[in-house]
Amino acid sequence: MAKGTYVQPELAGGFRDYLPEDMIPRQKMLDTIKTVFERFGFVPLDTPGLEKEEVLTGGDPDFKKQIFRAGLEGGKDALALRFDLTVPLARVIAANPELKMPFKRYQFGRCWRGERQQAGRFREFMQLDADVVGSSSIAADAEVITLMYETMRALGFKDQDFVIKISDRRVLNTLADVAGFDPEKMPSVLRTLDKLDKIGWDGVEKEMTLAASLSKEQFKKVKAFIERGDAAAFAPLGTLLDIPKKSYAFDLSVARGLGYYTGVVFETVLTKLPSIGSIFSGGRYDGLVSRFSNRAIPAVGTSVGVDRLFVAMQKLGMIKKEKRTAQVCVLNFELTAERQCIGAATALRRAGIATNLYLGGEKTLKGQLAYAVIEEYPVVVIIGTDEAKRGVAQVKDMVKRTQTEVKQTDIVSAVQKLL
Amino acid sequence: MAKGTYVQPELAGGFRDYLPEDMIPRQKMLDTIKTVFERFGFVPLDTPGLEKEEVLTGGDPDFKKQIFRAGLEGGKDALALRFDLTVPLARVIAANPELKMPFKRYQFGRCWRGERQQAGRFREFMQLDADVVGSSSIAADAEVITLMYETMRALGFKDQDFVIKISDRRVLNTLADVAGFDPEKMPSVLRTLDKLDKIGWDGVEKEMTLAASLSKEQFKKVKAFIERGDAAAFAPLGTLLDIPKKSYAFDLSVARGLGYYTGVVFETVLTKLPSIGSIFSGGRYDGLVSRFSNRAIPAVGTSVGVDRLFVAMQKLGMIKKEKRTAQVCVLNFELTAERQCIGAATALRRAGIATNLYLGGEKTLKGQLAYAVIEEYPVVVIIGTDEAKRGVAQVKDMVKRTQTEVKQTDIVSAVQKLL
Repeated sequence: MAKGTYVQPELAGGFRDYLPEDMIPRQKMLDTIKTVFERFGFVPLDTPGLEKEEVLTGGDPDFKKQIFRAGLEGGKDALALRFDLTVPLARVIAANPELKMPFKRYQFGRCWRGERQQAGRFREFMQLDADVVGSSSIAADAEVITLMYETMRALGFKDQDFVIKISDRRVLNTLADVAGFDPEKMPSVLRTLDKLDKIGWDGVEKEMTLAASLSKEQFKKVKAFIERGDAAAFAPLGTLLDIPKKSYAFDLSVARGLGYYTGVVFETVLTKLPSIGSIFSGGRYDGLVSRFSNRAIPAVGTSVGVDRLFVAMQKLGMIKKEKRTAQVCVLNFELTAERQCIGAATALRRAGIATNLYLGGEKTLKGQLAYAVIEEYPVVVIIGTDEAKRGVAQVKDMVKRTQTEVKQTDIVSAVQKLL
Repeated sequence: MAKGTYVQPELAGGFRDYLPEDMIPRQKMLDTIKTVFERFGFVPLDTPGLEKEEVLTGGDPDFKKQIFRAGLEGGKDALALRFDLTVPLARVIAANPELKMPFKRYQFGRCWRGERQQAGRFREFMQLDADVVGSSSIAADAEVITLMYETMRALGFKDQDFVIKISDRRVLNTLADVAGFDPEKMPSVLRTLDKLDKIGWDGVEKEMTLAASLSKEQFKKVKAFIERGDAAAFAPLGTLLDIPKKSYAFDLSVARGLGYYTGVVFETVLTKLPSIGSIFSGGRYDGLVSRFSNRAIPAVGTSVGVDRLFVAMQKLGMIKKEKRTAQVCVLNFELTAERQCIGAATALRRAGIATNLYLGGEKTLKGQLAYAVIEEYPVVVIIGTDEAKRGVAQVKDMVKRTQTEVKQTDIVSAVQKLL
């Protein structure tokens, strides 16, 4: 690059930064979810973002448009960026036969997809998954659904703020028989069914009769089947769900388009924000490692779309911007006292109190105090030359506007009283 | 892919998984570091793994062999994976002029480099950085060094287990003058100096006289200069370091090869494991955003090489494999009691106790108890048909081998007593 010319400091389309004001609450959100997952006994796994392309796609040409390929100049492996955390889980299970079943793992990490660029769709996004691998028990299905409920509650949602919609592929798979259409049309019928929330039954009718070329009669049977539900099929799972009735619903219109589901499937929608779609979804898929071996390994799991959830919680006013994590500011305006100011900051930090030492350009007490007011610090510690000589500090309660002189050895306890 | 053939479930060379037994302690390590960084008032930032190649390299051809390029089929942007967290920080600073200075941010995330494949070198690795942007104050230099000390202590290292070696580019930059060699040879001289720990003064002499073609006389002057040190230059910083003397040393042999440093530079080496090199290093670089604009923005920061640190701590016996986070196992061996077993697990989890509900294939009490013994659960909760009928549970202390019958409403308090 020629001297004196500059690079534009910009991101590619479909990518975003999280500045601290958003990253502080986002990180709290992630920590909350992880804490719930760990309480349920899920253990963390980590896998690379970059894997062999063949491992990620299994050679399926449908992925080719969606996948980011990556490589070194002259590199010999065909590599790509992962697009979900399920395929890497399957690889880990296939490659480590010594892992004890059931294997309950959670994982969070970035994934990449060539999404069309539209509102709320990112080409790099964070997923947080939990899966029970190696158990075909219905109690495992119930466990994952309960995990979703407890996670939503821990995030601050009330029982009436969300609904976990539960369906079952085994029931849906009888649809072709019941409605008398060619089973080959099933994928197209299920994909259309997934749009019911967005386009209503009129829209579904149009798509099913046109795109899937169902007859009017067949469509009517499909609609009746979905609306009737299948209480008997869901009874065993229902008895194991230890969560309030208003927070879940058995709803056959949830089909989850992805081909690999084989049993129960579920989605979580927000009652006040249905348009944002499912923010927490998954299901049972009993062919987890079929790409890698002939071992039959059942699994059930769920995935949080972290970025979409964060946008939803912002829209619902559940996320506040936060500009700092420190609660105390130690001013630093006279060089002769600087060592003692640093000592005060160190003592507070060792006591577990998040503390900022003033490092800015203001050189006067007045200027630094004005800064602390603007930044809304609840507590300020002041050590000038005079205080330094006498081994004391002023501890200022910025809310009540009171100030106490304490010995420097007592700064921590004086600050603790104010927090 | 043809039916009946399988994909090999393997990673590309230079990439690794963290299975739960390693990921549990690794995550604790990361959390410890983040906690210290937050106590120092650093706020989190997040940027994408994938950026425009020009932003990452600034067009510098030296990066071309090291960088992973990435893209969609037919994508129009030239993208690449980030190789550090400093360039993305510079982009964020340049793109967001409204950010208040000093801006103290930390960031952790994966980076990718085309490292030659050798022991302990990975092509995907995690970095954890902290930087003070917008302050040229010597107190900011001291703050970053103190942060490194406090982080090492919080990780479990003792004062004598590590040394933070501190040097200064401004002092080193006088070397050409002092020793009387052509300033053009400085980069080569500094690179050689960085190898002193590994190859000793004999090796350094060989390289400097051969590769950098210094005369014997010039080399002697370099050696004398480095060994003498420059106490006066470091005195101001020394008075601000509130950390034990044995944990740091002013040492001009630390040069930090990277071109962008402009002031103090530092490295942390482990006294019992010097061969592993620096696990925590950084310095002052006052041309942070020079690629993007003509604004002069000073910065000082440090970076933990998380994967290398983890390997070091494993070698030092400071990291133990952990197979689970759950402390309690609720058995589940009779269908008639299953609902109550799930209820017990839910109650424990809501009380913040990490709990596993048994979801495996063993169907008998005996078999499930044997599993709990092998997995070394300290506490087991048992509800069979008989207990279910009577509304009670057996709470088993697996260490003392005692068992207490409690009402199901008292399970949480009974378990809490044992943990």
